[in-house]
Amino acid sequence: MKKYDHLTRNAAGRIVPGEINGEKHIPYKGVGKHIPDGRKFAPRIYSCADYPPDGNKLVPDLKEALIRAGIRDGMTISTHHHFRDGDLIANQVFDAAHELGIKSLRWFPSASFPCHQHVIKYLEDGTIHHIEGSMNGALGRFCSEGRMQGMGVLRSHGGRYQSVQDGEVRIDIAVIAAPTADPFGNANGVEGPAACGLLGFALADSQYADRVIVVTDNLVPFPCIPWQIHGNYVDFVVKVDQVGIPEKIVSGTTQITRSPDRLYIAELTARFCDEAGIIRDGFSYQAGAGGTALSIGNYFRDILRKRGWKARFIRAGSNKYPVEMLEEGLVDYILDGQTFDLEGVRSMRENPNHVNTSPFTSYNYHGKGNFATMVDVVILGATEVDLQFNGNVVTHSDGYLLHGIGGWQNCLFSRCTILPIPLFRDRIPVIRDKVTTLCGPGELIDVIVTERGIAINPLRTDLIEKMNGSGLPVKTIDQLKDEAEKICGKPSSPELDDELVAVVKWVDGTVLDAIRKVPV
Amino acid sequence: MKKYDHLTRNAAGRIVPGEINGEKHIPYKGVGKHIPDGRKFAPRIYSCADYPPDGNKLVPDLKEALIRAGIRDGMTISTHHHFRDGDLIANQVFDAAHELGIKSLRWFPSASFPCHQHVIKYLEDGTIHHIEGSMNGALGRFCSEGRMQGMGVLRSHGGRYQSVQDGEVRIDIAVIAAPTADPFGNANGVEGPAACGLLGFALADSQYADRVIVVTDNLVPFPCIPWQIHGNYVDFVVKVDQVGIPEKIVSGTTQITRSPDRLYIAELTARFCDEAGIIRDGFSYQAGAGGTALSIGNYFRDILRKRGWKARFIRAGSNKYPVEMLEEGLVDYILDGQTFDLEGVRSMRENPNHVNTSPFTSYNYHGKGNFATMVDVVILGATEVDLQFNGNVVTHSDGYLLHGIGGWQNCLFSRCTILPIPLFRDRIPVIRDKVTTLCGPGELIDVIVTERGIAINPLRTDLIEKMNGSGLPVKTIDQLKDEAEKICGKPSSPELDDELVAVVKWVDGTVLDAIRKVPV
Repeated sequence: MKKYDHLTRNAAGRIVPGEINGEKHIPYKGVGKHIPDGRKFAPRIYSCADYPPDGNKLVPDLKEALIRAGIRDGMTISTHHHFRDGDLIANQVFDAAHELGIKSLRWFPSASFPCHQHVIKYLEDGTIHHIEGSMNGALGRFCSEGRMQGMGVLRSHGGRYQSVQDGEVRIDIAVIAAPTADPFGNANGVEGPAACGLLGFALADSQYADRVIVVTDNLVPFPCIPWQIHGNYVDFVVKVDQVGIPEKIVSGTTQITRSPDRLYIAELTARFCDEAGIIRDGFSYQAGAGGTALSIGNYFRDILRKRGWKARFIRAGSNKYPVEMLEEGLVDYILDGQTFDLEGVRSMRENPNHVNTSPFTSYNYHGKGNFATMVDVVILGATEVDLQFNGNVVTHSDGYLLHGIGGWQNCLFSRCTILPIPLFRDRIPVIRDKVTTLCGPGELIDVIVTERGIAINPLRTDLIEKMNGSGLPVKTIDQLKDEAEKICGKPSSPELDDELVAVVKWVDGTVLDAIRKVPV
Repeated sequence: MKKYDHLTRNAAGRIVPGEINGEKHIPYKGVGKHIPDGRKFAPRIYSCADYPPDGNKLVPDLKEALIRAGIRDGMTISTHHHFRDGDLIANQVFDAAHELGIKSLRWFPSASFPCHQHVIKYLEDGTIHHIEGSMNGALGRFCSEGRMQGMGVLRSHGGRYQSVQDGEVRIDIAVIAAPTADPFGNANGVEGPAACGLLGFALADSQYADRVIVVTDNLVPFPCIPWQIHGNYVDFVVKVDQVGIPEKIVSGTTQITRSPDRLYIAELTARFCDEAGIIRDGFSYQAGAGGTALSIGNYFRDILRKRGWKARFIRAGSNKYPVEMLEEGLVDYILDGQTFDLEGVRSMRENPNHVNTSPFTSYNYHGKGNFATMVDVVILGATEVDLQFNGNVVTHSDGYLLHGIGGWQNCLFSRCTILPIPLFRDRIPVIRDKVTTLCGPGELIDVIVTERGIAINPLRTDLIEKMNGSGLPVKTIDQLKDEAEKICGKPSSPELDDELVAVVKWVDGTVLDAIRKVPV
């Protein structure tokens, strides 16, 4: 039986627990409504007197590093996901923990992938109590079916930084897999046989974790430059044979879509942006890495080329397409949060205008601003949208938790957020009366583009005005929903259990929604 | 009358106050003996909801920015010294504070220079209570003569970072003069008409100050890349006509010495390093920016060239000499803390292997190590050395406080610290029975090189052994002192007042020595 007391209805009308895994959490209050009044987490003060003066922090293996880091029951262990489905280290961390007989760990990855279903046995035998972080694929299914001992906590990339910075999640031991490192612990992702580009998702972990272990397969003499992770935060360094599988670092679609419907959605999206005056000399955008998004990026590129314009920056997840634009001089900078192919890695290594960013600079809502608000237009996906423009990215309409939030919530703060989505998938309509799980409040989602037309959020009267007299198929979201239902029929709501298996946090640390168990 | 109670004798035998400007401080306990047990300073948690979503933090002028930052009596205001004697902003800060009628400020510069004697009137009228930071020239003289209301506190660059990180000094408002910035507050020192290279001395200020103001004369559209200072820490941005005078950024000697004595000292130093086996393929060093030091650097360069070796890194204060070596391929990296000429600035802008560092990476003693300990040999200056190899860099033998500590204390942790010094200056012997002010414990100072011979610290039996049978003039430090006194006579000790005007902190925040008033 799950522990969740004090259920309350939050400002989004969602029923959420006030206590999660034994800790108190604040219900969502509305966008920009929760103003924190505390102080950031204060890590211990360390002393150079306790660290080797020759700078050599090497220990024989990961298990030894965990022992020296003081691993014990109930601790919080963090990892990062820059290797995506090619990560080889997180599983080894829990193999070692299991061998040591450690129980009830909280795993705090920046995201987990199918390769991590290896740890399901540790969730089952109590080595891991629960996962806080994205659960893609099998781990999400495991959680959805109520088989995880604790409650899952899903956060955006920015929310993860916020939670660590604010002391909401206190990391006892951070394990940072690094494609290159020196014995002092300086590390980067751009060099080495498993180069993955950058290590920004591990920045908070390095800054705030009590003990930090860097694991690398490419040890270089001090100094490891660039030092994306500073050895001054690192306790131990471990050399292994391989930290990640480069071929699997390349994740997601990197091919332009060939589906005629999706190509049409891409074209509509680009034309909308153009007619709305969003595309201009010096504009900025984030297009994303899916097939439709890549195609939209290519439309943007063609417009820039034709008019002799230059984008100021592309916010990425980078792959060869924005890299080509950077090299062609169509954009001043790529501000990159994670590289999605080896061209992205190469460009970041070689080109100072291909900038590695972290959730601190891009997404942390508890900073003095972040740059997500300065992106002119952001193209995002969604599993569902509802009539209030609310978005869902984590569960399918059958209630299964199968995806992470990534930077999705953070990106909603852009100047214009567009969701280009098909009207239905596998004959299941995407526009619903109410999203199964609320991940993004509708007031931040500006435009929905489907193969049957474009719906503009009524709050964006400026955009509606700009589309006056446009030849584009602008409709209401209700019209789009009706059209889908005419084809597929009215979808039924899933029969879900009352038991809560996970919560979705908002960017400010409040609880936006809860995810219910799927009966099996 | 100065306030200093609880005088105690610290582990170095120096009489120091336990209370400074009304706050308690810990007396020096010995190298590596004070192990902190607290937590770092925890800044407030901010919220993006309180900052402009368009990222535009521009305010009309510095005074307005100070008002919005909430300036009031008794606050701590910090500035950095990358512009050295060409800084134009710090004086304006106190002009504005004075106009606003603010009193009793603590000025916390990373260093002050002759150009800042402008603020003497504000020290006199109570706008500024006291200065914590290096006081070069007139301000040091002002302090020495007991004319400053509060007690001066001198810290090394690393000690300054430590004091801010640990919450020993809480900065209310940091003013960061930046050669280039964007309206969000991202800033760097490599671009713009007043380019000074980097802004590392302001890093702690940006991270920990409650309010941060960036002042620039070169405003660029977001993103300002590289973002050496992150706008995510910045509250306000001010555009001015000029932040610094580039010609005066170029400070210190950049000419190889022509003095035959100094050339001989340089040659002896280089030969010592070579015979001791310190110079090797892959070694590292810091030579410094003085005439003798530059000459030593050139000896090192010639040895590397001749033997086909390559240094792993040069720790700098950079100028054209290390830059030439980097470009010639004689060294892999320059790890640079401040640029001393425009060639240094250019190289840092263009060459990714010319790395901008901060006191956090290089010098902070309350981190998990720092890289000062990994430098094979460091060449430093001193105003005085004593028979226990203790060093002084801040006061002259007449008791006047005329120099800052800079990174000097931090550098002492290198694998071999060498002070190449003349036996006497203006017929005043440099080797004393006891240094006027203790800045560096003798156990960390390994070798003294003078024009009359080399003294090796008896603790370094390894170096003494290596010099067995050497043709170099190795002597005891007592011998060197006697030789100087035969020429100049036995120097007298200055007659100093009992009143304390300043203290010297050790790298761990403890009080190493106190500086007494010079009677006038």
